Amino acid sequence: MLDQIVIVLNRPQKLVNIAGVVRAMKNMGLSRLRLVDPAEYDQRDIAGIAHRSEDLLGTTEIFRDLGAALADATTVVGTTARRHGERLSPATPRDIAPELIARAQSGTVAILFGPEDNGLTNAELDRCHLLLTIPTDPGYASLNLAQAALLVCYELRQAAGAGIVAAAHRGRPATSAQLEGFFAALEQALLDVEFFKTAQYASKLRTLRSLTHRAQPTVREASLLRAIAYEISHYVQRLRAERDR
Amino acid sequence: MLDQIVIVLNRPQKLVNIAGVVRAMKNMGLSRLRLVDPAEYDQRDIAGIAHRSEDLLGTTEIFRDLGAALADATTVVGTTARRHGERLSPATPRDIAPELIARAQSGTVAILFGPEDNGLTNAELDRCHLLLTIPTDPGYASLNLAQAALLVCYELRQAAGAGIVAAAHRGRPATSAQLEGFFAALEQALLDVEFFKTAQYASKLRTLRSLTHRAQPTVREASLLRAIAYEISHYVQRLRAERDR
Repeated sequence: MLDQIVIVLNRPQKLVNIAGVVRAMKNMGLSRLRLVDPAEYDQRDIAGIAHRSEDLLGTTEIFRDLGAALADATTVVGTTARRHGERLSPATPRDIAPELIARAQSGTVAILFGPEDNGLTNAELDRCHLLLTIPTDPGYASLNLAQAALLVCYELRQAAGAGIVAAAHRGRPATSAQLEGFFAALEQALLDVEFFKTAQYASKLRTLRSLTHRAQPTVREASLLRAIAYEISHYVQRLRAERDR
Repeated sequence: MLDQIVIVLNRPQKLVNIAGVVRAMKNMGLSRLRLVDPAEYDQRDIAGIAHRSEDLLGTTEIFRDLGAALADATTVVGTTARRHGERLSPATPRDIAPELIARAQSGTVAILFGPEDNGLTNAELDRCHLLLTIPTDPGYASLNLAQAALLVCYELRQAAGAGIVAAAHRGRPATSAQLEGFFAALEQALLDVEFFKTAQYASKLRTLRSLTHRAQPTVREASLLRAIAYEISHYVQRLRAERDR
């Protein structure tokens, strides 16, 4: 089950931290790493810090763009140290690990870590289906990247070892790319019917995203949702053309 | 309870690892550190790596001799990566943490870590009342000192109950009546944009219902969904009226 879990480091700043994450993954038996636009990267330098990690580094994938790195993921979990107003409230790694192990049986689960300094941006958090915060002393909450990864990987290993029974299987879960396709079509449809009159455009879209992520649509459901959004746009455009003829 | 737990580093080799342990302790709300015969020690250098740890460093005790460092402990827990033939079989941090928290109510509990390279000697392990091993991938078991301390401190914090993040509160859940209001508006909107060309009308509506139920919308979210559906209908009707004028 751990093979279906991908650790994604978004814009990591320091090579030594990538190496720390590699070590943590190796310690806990995770093997799939993706890096998005790393500021420093040299496979040999990393292997010099994280010994005996050539296997993992040999399959590490590097992306320019976060969307591409998450495209095949059916669940995207964002890690964050902060609370985010209207968003999903973050779970602890312990609470969420069994669910992630269960989901990893039917698709790729991506655990997303932001850059060392500022973490994930709002737009990046919008891509996440679930949020995760590591419980720490509120007066000293800052964990470095490798430590955060270690604790998350540790909980995943614990949960995988606990013999989790497969969750009810509804159908193949939609990928992040499929859901993004729906969100784009939805936004267009809402523009076409002039729904966004107010200033709360972004906040409404965020609500619709988080609602959709919570429902965990299947491939079939995601394509139905997208088809509806398309149809609204097409129909409105057709009517408008007829009116203006 | 965490105040009764003392982290003891026996002959630590590197200052940077002491600093890593200090950070881990601060992250998890532990405050009592003892060092036995450290190879490198400089309080300011450590504070330069583990920021805002002057309080903990100000009370850190340094001993020449392990016996003295453990003298007041009523429980000594040795950490080890190996199995030791005839000894107590080591427990995992998760299994043992609640017991340690319980014991910390009536005396000092010392968690003993050996030097980075070789760990605790046999004579040192003999001083331990309990042994602890962190579960890792057997093929990649070596954790560095700071990482091992982080995982142990994390489990102690979890067991002490201090780590629980407040339960997720997204808002008041929508009532069935509110959701039915949305479903009716949605069906009307889909009729208005002539989405239901096929025979699968009922099945598509059912899919949309189950998807919505799965997401468990709040009152606010349900009213946003309903507003969108209304707006689609109104917009289309308005366009149609303009066309037919």
